[in-house]
Amino acid sequence: MASSDPNPPLSPPPLRRRGARMRSAVLAATVRVLTEHGLAGTTVGAVARAAGVHETSVYRGWGTRENLILEALAEQVDTAMPVPDTGHVRDDLVAYFVTLARLLATTQGEALLRLSAERDDTLPDRRLSYWAERLERGAVMVRRGVERGELAPDTDPGLVIEAISGALFTRALISGAPLDEDLAARLVTLVLGGACPPPSGRS
Amino acid sequence: MASSDPNPPLSPPPLRRRGARMRSAVLAATVRVLTEHGLAGTTVGAVARAAGVHETSVYRGWGTRENLILEALAEQVDTAMPVPDTGHVRDDLVAYFVTLARLLATTQGEALLRLSAERDDTLPDRRLSYWAERLERGAVMVRRGVERGELAPDTDPGLVIEAISGALFTRALISGAPLDEDLAARLVTLVLGGACPPPSGRS
Repeated sequence: MASSDPNPPLSPPPLRRRGARMRSAVLAATVRVLTEHGLAGTTVGAVARAAGVHETSVYRGWGTRENLILEALAEQVDTAMPVPDTGHVRDDLVAYFVTLARLLATTQGEALLRLSAERDDTLPDRRLSYWAERLERGAVMVRRGVERGELAPDTDPGLVIEAISGALFTRALISGAPLDEDLAARLVTLVLGGACPPPSGRS
Repeated sequence: MASSDPNPPLSPPPLRRRGARMRSAVLAATVRVLTEHGLAGTTVGAVARAAGVHETSVYRGWGTRENLILEALAEQVDTAMPVPDTGHVRDDLVAYFVTLARLLATTQGEALLRLSAERDDTLPDRRLSYWAERLERGAVMVRRGVERGELAPDTDPGLVIEAISGALFTRALISGAPLDEDLAARLVTLVLGGACPPPSGRS
């Protein structure tokens, strides 16, 4: 609503700013509740209490509990997983996927996988675009490797990311096999170098 | 218990035979109920009714609903996914993983993944050994490729299987991306050949 303040605003108007502040507070509270109480304990009510806002504000902003948690985790995971740019595709991928393997062992990482595996109401669409964006973030490293001539020109960047991350996700969520410290590096070596023997003396 | 029948038994004694017959009937009923009613509808009660046995017999034989479903699906999936042996590692892997990709799109395949992702009481241990056995089944194809000299001697057979299957599992359970008809073949090509460019004229 227009205020009677005669000065032109130099910063966003109070309501807008309050909206942005509420958004950050709710997302931060979501991650906090998730870390302390796990996925099952992360209800809209618990998050609203932790953020000091009304439940209705949370529903108005995010619609469902699932959308709220997915958005909170998306922000957190992207911050925790910057895309490296060392100039070498192998180093970039190893650094990135070692971080992912560690993240998958945390409450937030596990919650992200579990939430994505749950299937209900409004979630499927958000989930699909969420993972498409994450795949694209990873593919950037592969694409740079192709441009530098480190990888074959017909490399499918998304497929490289899926082969490496899929094995990590599967251990974390499905098979329960341990996420060994060297697993990410071994996967990167396999997917970049392949299992076929070198035709001549390729190391 | 010893019977008073004077003839030596030519087939397993009645009680044993009845046990084996009950086991098959219950496992078949489990798959049937799962296909018709999905994972949530597959209760011990529903399976017992479909198999015409008492619920207590099911609990006595399998302990939990999760163990029952995992065993039923294990038998079904192994039957649906014979391990090919064409003499060529690439052909074996493509055939095997095309079948897996198709299976993951069925009610049973999805139930198997979902059940493995659920974590409770007695399940984790069974799940770990279940997936370790499945991984070993697949690794046999890779090991034969190494023995024939098609793959490098230091190839990690399990890792090859995890890189290919992990991408398929992730699409089916986590990202929701489609399991395209050619996805399995593209993954096999990537993991066997690698993304690095051929040093000379390797095609």
